[in-house]
Amino acid sequence: MTKDVENWLAAQDAATIETLKDFCRIPSVSTDPAFAADVRRAAQFVVDRLTDAQLPTVELVETDGHPCIFAEWIVDPAKPTILIYGHYDVQPPDPLGKWQTPPFEPDIRNDRLYARGASDDKGSLLIPLMVARAYAAVHGAPPLNLKFLIEGEEESGSPHFAPTVAAMADRLACDLVVSADGAMWRADLPSITVASRGMLAMELTVRGASKDLHSGRHGGSAPNPVRALARMMASLHDDDGRVTVPGFADAATPPDPAIIDAINDVAFDVADYFDSIGAPRPDPLPDGPALLTRQWLVPTLEFNGISGGYAGQGTKTVIPSEAAVKITCRLVAGQDPDAVFAAIRDHLTAVRPAGYTMDLHRHGPGSKAFALDPDMPGLAVAEEILTDIMGTRPLRVAMGATIPIGAVFAAHLDVGTIFFSFSTSDEDYHAPNEFYRLSSLRSGQIAWARLFDRLAL
Amino acid sequence: MTKDVENWLAAQDAATIETLKDFCRIPSVSTDPAFAADVRRAAQFVVDRLTDAQLPTVELVETDGHPCIFAEWIVDPAKPTILIYGHYDVQPPDPLGKWQTPPFEPDIRNDRLYARGASDDKGSLLIPLMVARAYAAVHGAPPLNLKFLIEGEEESGSPHFAPTVAAMADRLACDLVVSADGAMWRADLPSITVASRGMLAMELTVRGASKDLHSGRHGGSAPNPVRALARMMASLHDDDGRVTVPGFADAATPPDPAIIDAINDVAFDVADYFDSIGAPRPDPLPDGPALLTRQWLVPTLEFNGISGGYAGQGTKTVIPSEAAVKITCRLVAGQDPDAVFAAIRDHLTAVRPAGYTMDLHRHGPGSKAFALDPDMPGLAVAEEILTDIMGTRPLRVAMGATIPIGAVFAAHLDVGTIFFSFSTSDEDYHAPNEFYRLSSLRSGQIAWARLFDRLAL
Repeated sequence: MTKDVENWLAAQDAATIETLKDFCRIPSVSTDPAFAADVRRAAQFVVDRLTDAQLPTVELVETDGHPCIFAEWIVDPAKPTILIYGHYDVQPPDPLGKWQTPPFEPDIRNDRLYARGASDDKGSLLIPLMVARAYAAVHGAPPLNLKFLIEGEEESGSPHFAPTVAAMADRLACDLVVSADGAMWRADLPSITVASRGMLAMELTVRGASKDLHSGRHGGSAPNPVRALARMMASLHDDDGRVTVPGFADAATPPDPAIIDAINDVAFDVADYFDSIGAPRPDPLPDGPALLTRQWLVPTLEFNGISGGYAGQGTKTVIPSEAAVKITCRLVAGQDPDAVFAAIRDHLTAVRPAGYTMDLHRHGPGSKAFALDPDMPGLAVAEEILTDIMGTRPLRVAMGATIPIGAVFAAHLDVGTIFFSFSTSDEDYHAPNEFYRLSSLRSGQIAWARLFDRLAL
Repeated sequence: MTKDVENWLAAQDAATIETLKDFCRIPSVSTDPAFAADVRRAAQFVVDRLTDAQLPTVELVETDGHPCIFAEWIVDPAKPTILIYGHYDVQPPDPLGKWQTPPFEPDIRNDRLYARGASDDKGSLLIPLMVARAYAAVHGAPPLNLKFLIEGEEESGSPHFAPTVAAMADRLACDLVVSADGAMWRADLPSITVASRGMLAMELTVRGASKDLHSGRHGGSAPNPVRALARMMASLHDDDGRVTVPGFADAATPPDPAIIDAINDVAFDVADYFDSIGAPRPDPLPDGPALLTRQWLVPTLEFNGISGGYAGQGTKTVIPSEAAVKITCRLVAGQDPDAVFAAIRDHLTAVRPAGYTMDLHRHGPGSKAFALDPDMPGLAVAEEILTDIMGTRPLRVAMGATIPIGAVFAAHLDVGTIFFSFSTSDEDYHAPNEFYRLSSLRSGQIAWARLFDRLAL
């Protein structure tokens, strides 16, 4: 039913690539204040594309940081409404010396567009903008109600996004969020991300004496907080790296069985994984499903940094007065950040040796895991479309990292989010020589055109 | 037999205090190159005092750092020869703002001379210089053969001292070293230090992946070297802080029983100890003899500093590629630094988890413990003299810290070292408002005069 729209998009192909190149020429680096004017230019670029697509309402929404763009086209209140998410900001381009062509001078090689932001997320964001425009051009309107919320701080941790969604919840009301961000897991396998782990961050500080002491004069008799901290840390995992904190994972709920199927079907190469991160292959090597399960579906407690005492060159005969470790946990569905924090605090309090004080400081509220209802109708539609276009049924995959937007939309709008991005995780976003496959730009437009059509029913 | 010498010294009392004030006016801070000329002035001051004492040979001995002073007076090759050790350099005066009177403007309050270096070691070093001069003035010569080796880098770790002793071993040959450095343990109890712990320094680095990884994407599946390091560290001690490395203390020999007597007799106040270092009192509190034994006679393995991953403000979702801990051990008599290092290396190699590499880097050769032969005749002489002067028999004490010179003289000259200092450990050396008791200057001269006399027999 979308043949006319698809034909219109195909006819625009060369122009669309030029538009993407124009978008990528704007160095919208959100984390660096030196680029603030460019970030705003990129926001205006999105406004202009939404205006091209004839959306009746297009607004720049100011925040305490970079603006969001809100747009809407209510074609019929009786029809379904989707909210489309994406971001127009990009990662910093450093290290500049490692780029083959300058990061903000887009270059096409082998049907790939090389530029900072091409894959994350300008290429995939341009797709729904073009599809909306195609429907307007061909049919005068989209087949369902469209809303857009595009942010400019995703690469800076989205500090103002959740408050913006909360404040605009009434205007953002919808049946489903479709995200143009969130890459496919692998280039060689279509996939849909249906779960991501939540997050909880904290810092443990252990103190002994009130000042650093001479390790000769006091060694053996004075408290050594580095020793105490190491003992406390060692009590948090077993020999196999499993978290041993009582109650840590009690509330975890079972994952979507389709994810377990994907884990078992995907023939994950464990030796290649360790080679790719430059780590020694453990002996014995874990099997692929076990490793992927730990990466996707098992909650973690990872140490991100440790400090205490002398860290300079050579040696210093000191017993430090304090030592600290930064900890982040990745949580799975069912785990509550508050309850997990309490479990860790209780455990650390119980194992703290006599003669030391401890302080467990929580960094922020954290976020719950994101998990789509496996039976959500929009998910099946998206899977059917991808199967048609790519010739293979997409895997339902989980993501070890945290995708805050899924949880934000669930919390404030009470809707699910489908990640319908046509970036893939091998496209070196966050690294030099980021690229976007122009074939993805084409297939993505077909997929989104069909998604609009199918969800409108 | 030393009455005339003691009377001569008493008559010089006011002049001797002025001489000490002059010595303390020279800011001979060895660690700071800005004071290099002052350090050399202090060396010349020592040369002048030895010349005043009429020693026939007085030489400035150049090193790759600050010079040593060598002097000698062989009165009769058939008589015993002692080598007197001390140092003319001082600690930096920082923090300057905490001094009641400027550190290099000596001020007398309550029969105490306040100045940087007054206690460590200029006051106690001036004593044998004055006693040698008194013998020359009263009797025309000392009663035994004297040698002096005074260094100018003690507060900078004595980097050139052992090579100097090794190179001059023939000229330094003696029956006994008497050190004017090395404070008495407590002001209220006379003591002689007869043992000090040796030292071994190293750094353990554990590596996982070749670069930092995202703790969301890779958490649970990638190696975390901070976790591995903490587990390895926790295997080095038991819950009570005792070192559990196999073979670590196998070669330790029993201490001088007199030290154990001192430990049991001294009524060490453990609660006061923890209060003094600003640490929480452990519950239950160890008893005094147990704590002192651990401070003086038990070898240690202390963590001096730990680092790895993100140490800035807030949180960063990273799995570090490596983590490292700095370790120093204090060794007791019998332990060989090489063998202890090998034992630790073997243990760490055995407990290293699969999937990590480790590197154990040794910092320098380390030093063996120092322990005097309890039956050395000079030791009994020193004890008798102190008993006479102070009215209490001195305790034989050990020192948790390392006194390298005792081991240096034992290694290169094959002689024992008696610490015959009249500084006490409460005199705030290494801190603002360092002071020296003028009563110690007087009693010290009497004691050294008698020591020359008694050792000459």
